[in-house]
Amino acid sequence: MTWVDGAAGSPYGVQNLPYGAFRHDGREPRLGVRVGDFVLDLDGAEAAELVLAGGALRRPVLNDFLALGRPQWTAVRRRIIELLTLPEHRAAVEPLLIPLAEVELTLPFAVGDYVDFYSSEHHASNVGQIFRPGQPMLLPNWRHLPIGYHGRAGTVVVSGTPVVRPCGQRPTSDGPVYGPSARLDIEAEVGFVVGVPTELGDRVPIEKFADHVFGVVLVNDWSARDIQAWEYQPLGPFLGKSFATSVSAWVVPLDALAHARVSAPPQDPPVLDYLRDEPHHGLDLRLEVEWNGGVVSRPPFSTMYWTPAQQLAHLTVNGASLRSGDLFASGTVSGPERDQTGSFLELSWGGREPVTLADGSARTFLEDGDTVTIRATAPGPDGTTIGLGEVTGTILPARHG
Amino acid sequence: MTWVDGAAGSPYGVQNLPYGAFRHDGREPRLGVRVGDFVLDLDGAEAAELVLAGGALRRPVLNDFLALGRPQWTAVRRRIIELLTLPEHRAAVEPLLIPLAEVELTLPFAVGDYVDFYSSEHHASNVGQIFRPGQPMLLPNWRHLPIGYHGRAGTVVVSGTPVVRPCGQRPTSDGPVYGPSARLDIEAEVGFVVGVPTELGDRVPIEKFADHVFGVVLVNDWSARDIQAWEYQPLGPFLGKSFATSVSAWVVPLDALAHARVSAPPQDPPVLDYLRDEPHHGLDLRLEVEWNGGVVSRPPFSTMYWTPAQQLAHLTVNGASLRSGDLFASGTVSGPERDQTGSFLELSWGGREPVTLADGSARTFLEDGDTVTIRATAPGPDGTTIGLGEVTGTILPARHG
Repeated sequence: MTWVDGAAGSPYGVQNLPYGAFRHDGREPRLGVRVGDFVLDLDGAEAAELVLAGGALRRPVLNDFLALGRPQWTAVRRRIIELLTLPEHRAAVEPLLIPLAEVELTLPFAVGDYVDFYSSEHHASNVGQIFRPGQPMLLPNWRHLPIGYHGRAGTVVVSGTPVVRPCGQRPTSDGPVYGPSARLDIEAEVGFVVGVPTELGDRVPIEKFADHVFGVVLVNDWSARDIQAWEYQPLGPFLGKSFATSVSAWVVPLDALAHARVSAPPQDPPVLDYLRDEPHHGLDLRLEVEWNGGVVSRPPFSTMYWTPAQQLAHLTVNGASLRSGDLFASGTVSGPERDQTGSFLELSWGGREPVTLADGSARTFLEDGDTVTIRATAPGPDGTTIGLGEVTGTILPARHG
Repeated sequence: MTWVDGAAGSPYGVQNLPYGAFRHDGREPRLGVRVGDFVLDLDGAEAAELVLAGGALRRPVLNDFLALGRPQWTAVRRRIIELLTLPEHRAAVEPLLIPLAEVELTLPFAVGDYVDFYSSEHHASNVGQIFRPGQPMLLPNWRHLPIGYHGRAGTVVVSGTPVVRPCGQRPTSDGPVYGPSARLDIEAEVGFVVGVPTELGDRVPIEKFADHVFGVVLVNDWSARDIQAWEYQPLGPFLGKSFATSVSAWVVPLDALAHARVSAPPQDPPVLDYLRDEPHHGLDLRLEVEWNGGVVSRPPFSTMYWTPAQQLAHLTVNGASLRSGDLFASGTVSGPERDQTGSFLELSWGGREPVTLADGSARTFLEDGDTVTIRATAPGPDGTTIGLGEVTGTILPARHG
């Protein structure tokens, strides 16, 4: 039981302890761990030798810590739990707790490569029906491999960063025109943060997943559907996605999600050997999409067809190397029901069925000034809850109409 | 006229002066400029205050120098020309010249994001005919925007790095099977290295191209055609490309290519305003593809439909920001003739028409042990030639058959 005010029993008690980076008092970003409504200053904690990680906690981003590997991650986590629970540490540690309200959260890790998967069967089927009516909902490859592509790592931004409505080409019956996207959308996703790198030519088999992956963030893969629809053949999404991808400020360690493991949906046809995972485990992360203050959808991550371990095994099976800070996202999380979908494309069924927001206004896609916040929780030990924080962003008008 | 032995009149005289990074004498990588068959040690030159760049030349990669911008790039170039031509500098500079044969060249810049375009009309038409016979050669969007996608930055490697044959899924009539790629190919491309970054929401209009782009590398975008064909719908190439992308060790500054500017092919239909460039300039870079020691193709970069300035304007028109070290490649360079194509997919027409190599052996795609070297030259001032170095790689057998 932690001695930190208000932390015990909260989704950010010592069962969670997510890592992030923050500014405070005008100093450069430093690392911290969230406990309750405080940030434990890890830079200060390692400087005071309260916790030791070879200096990796005294950096502006998590990458050096991510590279240390699971034994070190676990040792540091155990030590932080001691610091926050044993009364004998209170006097030394309390001065290192900063109220969350006083800090500005910054991007917690420098993103190496960013890969985005497409692993929800419900989402892929919905998109198939909306864009290719009358044809099979899933393409022939979809059940054989986790479809994915590389996104733009340099435009991954931390939660709270405003999103400028992108301009680009969209198709009309008279040919393409240039202007602001008229079908700006979200994609509610879960991202996995790579810790331990690999060499070129190596691969990460299913059973080594937890040796390489440190933790989890929430992702909003903002998408301009009109730009995407016109550009994406034959090489995939490009400008329709590359203007911004938001991630939550807190990286929840896999260690905190041990109680969230659930069986993933069965896979048929059977997968090739390199993708076989037994037990076939997903994570019971419960997402919530809030549009201008009201919840419009509750996507269940437990329904994902391809698991994160399968995604990483696939991503590396060709010998592609990993770097600390690589991010791979699940793809839009959509459950079987309309109010469980993770994109407004699905929620408004291609823009044909407007959604009524809490304030009574109607929406299909995003309007300027709209704010979307994605939150998630997971079951923790002993009936506790793990909070995954939030990823939020507000749409600013296009700059170059 | 340079006093460096053998440099005057060579493709690496003072009209060229490409930048790279190298190891020598067991030290960590440092920066250098190639002149003739020597490397001028820029770390040593800046340490001795022979050239000043605020310390940016005393790094293991070019990124800090790239960020300085065109006025500084030009000033440093002028200074290096002075050092290598004025006899009064010879005594101080000569000890900083290291024979090329004694160094190991390393990746010259840390790659931010890697974008690959698809801007040769001949290549896109050939691929269309091979994969979609009987249908229009180009998709409807192709003449309206430079099609592109993000590749894996973490697997960009320097020339000379061996390439392990990738494994993955390839389709058969009985469904997908796992194994080594049987259709391993090259793509001969030209890459552009971004120097000056931009902020999120900004864009780089056509006329600002040279403010942001520092120079040029050769690129071999190794491609596993069987893996690619099975995976690429609907989100584009992924594992078929992500196992390795090779770049030449020398970055040729745009300043060295002023005499290589030529009119690019006319564009019809007219492009949207943000893509309009007048004059519509390409670069007369003459590529050569050598397969196991014999030249099999001579792709002319001057035939590219979309210009690098149009590519960069498109890449940023949605507000995507740039970082120093971002790399964007042209896409496969193919001219109108079969022996001007930049991929073996085209050279062997989908594997149906084997190519005879200099040693008499026949090939469709790459076999283990094969070596491919792409070279290029461009016209320089006063009848000189600019050498773009080479990008080479040898295929190693698959590790996980």
